[in-house]
This record gives sequence, C-alpha cells and structure tokens, in this order.
Amino acid sequence: MNNIFDVIIIGSGPSGMSAALNILRYGKKVLLLEKENIGGQISKSPKVENLPSLKNISGIDFANNFFDQLLSLKINFKLEEVLELKKENNIFFIKTNLNNKYLSKAVVIAVGVSPRKINIENEENLVGKGISYCAICDGFFFKNKDVCVIGNGNTALQYTLFLSNYCKNVFLCILSEKIFADLFLIEKIKNKNNVFVKKFFSIKKIIEDSEKKCLKEIKFLNLKSKLEESLKVQGLFIAIGQTPNNIIFKNFVLLENGFIIVDETMQTNTVGLYAVGDCIKKNVRQVTTAVNDGSIAAFFINKYLNNFN
Amino acid sequence: MNNIFDVIIIGSGPSGMSAALNILRYGKKVLLLEKENIGGQISKSPKVENLPSLKNISGIDFANNFFDQLLSLKINFKLEEVLELKKENNIFFIKTNLNNKYLSKAVVIAVGVSPRKINIENEENLVGKGISYCAICDGFFFKNKDVCVIGNGNTALQYTLFLSNYCKNVFLCILSEKIFADLFLIEKIKNKNNVFVKKFFSIKKIIEDSEKKCLKEIKFLNLKSKLEESLKVQGLFIAIGQTPNNIIFKNFVLLENGFIIVDETMQTNTVGLYAVGDCIKKNVRQVTTAVNDGSIAAFFINKYLNNFN
Repeated sequence: MNNIFDVIIIGSGPSGMSAALNILRYGKKVLLLEKENIGGQISKSPKVENLPSLKNISGIDFANNFFDQLLSLKINFKLEEVLELKKENNIFFIKTNLNNKYLSKAVVIAVGVSPRKINIENEENLVGKGISYCAICDGFFFKNKDVCVIGNGNTALQYTLFLSNYCKNVFLCILSEKIFADLFLIEKIKNKNNVFVKKFFSIKKIIEDSEKKCLKEIKFLNLKSKLEESLKVQGLFIAIGQTPNNIIFKNFVLLENGFIIVDETMQTNTVGLYAVGDCIKKNVRQVTTAVNDGSIAAFFINKYLNNFN
Repeated sequence: MNNIFDVIIIGSGPSGMSAALNILRYGKKVLLLEKENIGGQISKSPKVENLPSLKNISGIDFANNFFDQLLSLKINFKLEEVLELKKENNIFFIKTNLNNKYLSKAVVIAVGVSPRKINIENEENLVGKGISYCAICDGFFFKNKDVCVIGNGNTALQYTLFLSNYCKNVFLCILSEKIFADLFLIEKIKNKNNVFVKKFFSIKKIIEDSEKKCLKEIKFLNLKSKLEESLKVQGLFIAIGQTPNNIIFKNFVLLENGFIIVDETMQTNTVGLYAVGDCIKKNVRQVTTAVNDGSIAAFFINKYLNNFN
C-alpha cells in the first residue's frame, strides 16, 4: 500500500491548494496534479484586492506564495493532466496525459472553470491573433492599440481597467444598459479617459485581416437604435463567464448545468470523491469561498482516511 | 434616511471583516462595531500557518492588515459593545454600552465565541493571577516558570508549543489517552524537551497561594491509575473549547446549542439579519470558513439592499 497516496487533488487553484494545505497539516500523503498553471484562474488576475489581509497582491503572487506553503510541507506535485478516473473497491485510479497511473484512497476534484466562448465565426481561429480570454496574459501585446472587452461583470471591468493602463482606447461592450459589477470598480472605470462603454451591444461578426491573418474589425448591432455599427480594434477580450471542466468525472458525480453537486462535507455522490471550488454548484464564487471548500473537504477527508480499511 | 447605515456588522473577527470588505466593495455604507479587540480570537494566536498565501503570520498582524484594508475603503468603525438589538418595520436599532443608538437596513452578527470555563472553585478569582484562557496574551508573564495547559485539540497544542519557548516546563493535560490535533502539531510537541503530556487527567482542585493571592498548585485524578496527584505550577492555561456569544440576539434568531442557525445565504430567521463565522452552527471553524461566510453574506446583503424599500 506504500505507493498509494492518501489523497490526490486535481487542480491547483485556491480551493485545491486549500484542501492540500489542510490535508498535509493532518499528516496525510498528498499528490497535487495540475494540467496548466499553478493557481488556476486567480493567477491570471492582475490585481486582487478582496483577499483577507492581503490589501493589494497580484494573482500570480498569491498563487506562488500559496504553493510555497505547500512545498514547505513537502507536497508531491506533478504538472500532468488527468485523462481518466476509475474506482475499484475503495481505491481510485488516475491516468494522466504522460501515461502515468496514480492510486489513492480519496480524490478531490478542484478543476475550476474555463472561459465561456461566444461561439461565433473566426472566434477560435483568431485566438492569439487578436482574441483573448485573459487580459493579464495577453494585454501587454496591445500596448497603444484599440481593444474591445466584451462582458458585464467584475472580470470584464477588471480587464477594462487593466487594459486602460496599456492600450490607447478600451471599449467595454455590454449587452444591457447597466453595468453589473462592484460599485467600487464602476467608479474606477468612470475616472478613466480612455474607456468608453458601449451599451446595448450585440456582436454580429468578427472580421479578419486577410493579409495579416489577425483581427481587424468587429461588427455589432446596437439593440436600442437597431443600427449596425463597427469598431476597428486590434484586440478583443472576451469575459462572458465560465464553464466548468467536469466532463471526465460525469460517471462518478451528479451534475447540474455542468457543475458538481456536493453535500455539506464537500463529498460527491461517490464515497471518497470530493469536489471543491468553482467547479461545484454554489452561490458565490470567490477565492474566500474556494478556500472554505478546501478546508471543509480536508476536515472530512481526514475523518474518512482515519476510518479507512 | 441619511443617518441610516446600509449595514451594521457586530464583531471584527475574520468573518465580520470579510463581510465588511465585500459590502464596502459593493459601494454600501457600513458601520463595524467591536467590543474588545480587532480580529477577535485569531488576534490571540501567536502564529497562524494555515492561512492561504500567508505562510507564517501572527494572528495580530493578520488582523491588523485586514483592518487596514477596511480603513482604505473608508469603513466606519466604533469600539463599542452592542447591548440591544431591535427591529421596527424594516429598520434595525442597535444600542451600545456608550448609550449610542445606530440604525441600519441590515445587520450582520459576527460575534464569535468565548473561551469555555471549567467551572471549578478558584477558577474565576485567579484569572490574571495565574489562570488564563489566552497563551499569547499572558504567556510571557510565565517566563522560566512551570505551567499547565488543559485541553485537547489544536488550540491546546498551539498554546503548549508557544509556552514551551518561554516557560521552564509545560504540562499538557488531557482527559483521554490520545491527543486530538493535527499530526503536524503533535510531531512538533514531541520534539520539545520541556513538554510533558499528562494523560487521563481530570482536574479536581485549584489551590491558591493564600499569601500571594495567586495560583500555587493543581490537584487532579489520574483516571487510569485512580491515584490523586498534584502539579505545582505558577500558570494554568485553559483551552477546552468555546461558547458562542449569541444570547442578546435570541429573540431574532434560532439557536442550536447556542449557535445561530442560518440558511445558505447566511440569513437568520429574521429578514435582513445575517450571521457569520464561529457564532453560527457549522461543521468547520477556521479562518478560511469564517471569511467564506462573510463573502456569502455580503453577496446576498447587497442583493437585499438593492431591493430595499
């Protein structure tokens, strides 16, 4: 049984790292698997201001410091993508993209969410050529250029603010008349001279520059005036929400709109299989609620492991 | 209506401050009331190692940094104790020990818990004269002295570790045979030469030095050997759990074992009255779960206020 981990945690966002931190402190053997980048979505936030006791920190610093905590507790960490999950008797089997197999007594799904797509022509083939879902990753490439942000909510506003520091003009494009974000952020937007809010915005076409093979123009309908308009922009940042990454677990968990249903112990409907963070069905998705999930899962997993036969 | 706050938060522990931080970011007018010290219980922890992205911080630093965040968002703060809560129509009235009256549209109860007493002769009259419920507050007074810690759990072990750096000898006294704390802490205790674990410990008498009017000796029964024994110690630290401070709210909330029952929005059974943190009925009481509660309450309070008539 020596090559069996107590717990495998899939995903190193705040919820996965919180679960890891607490389970390590309970003295258990933990493997943390991450397919992409440490910290998950938060690591792409330029500036996070609503973390307890951390007045102003970049998402990547938050994530790196958190990961350092885990390293100091001797976490096992692999940068591998989980492709398959199986359970036989009480043991979970996980297969990764590097064809490695890992065994454990309990598993925590902390895979988070991915940016939602508009699903419009040219969207996919212009990613990296003008279209992006992450302002902090790609914003700097658009220095002194004109960009659009599509979306209405804190993320879209944070992108807008961030981009307004680099770009010539930022057009924040919203479907409705009202911005649905923290007043705090709305106030900041108002103080920017190079930010313009386009209301009643409904995107119709993404036009490619056929020579340069990059984004050239966006055509849209003004839902109030019913007029078709266009914006010549070099960058388009899409922030219209998130979809969960839960499909490979569908045989083991109950899903609602793609989100995993858990009980108050964070357990799914498979014994020993827990889920935490943005990928579960919940009311409020913030770092504070993600780390909460991790702590709760850890508490009950520790109990589960102490009674494991 | 100008002198009515949007929200009054009672208690400045992590849950109350998290509620405040988020509600302020929603652009609402917040009054934070605290009767004793900023940060609540956590501010008494010498060293906190399970906070996300804060590898090693004292509880008081965590609390002060958190409070600074609120000050930068222009929180209204008063060091006053709430003595009375009333509701008329949709408005809450709060009366404090300074005889001030405050009005608000919503209230968040974040009053936390107080240390549980043993309820034994001399316990109360020797507080501050040898008996303490807070190692970080009072530990330093016992430099090079012998002390007892009564309790079994993370807090008792943290007290023991902390005191072992100052005191001559620390006796960790537990009722059972087994220590119920994070393995991580148990391992640390084992490496200390001046820590001794007294198992099957049942306290019988606290003896006062009648001349110096301070603690002199503790008499106890060894539940296994059935022998009466004693320890001559100058300090006794009691860490046997917590009781909630909810009694003044009893007409507005449902209680279970003294803890407030809330729904998934953190609302009590009174509309507009929310409760968060250690004072509510919940499974896991950590800073991570406290700040979660604050974020969730803030989210739903914002909705409530936006529809307030």
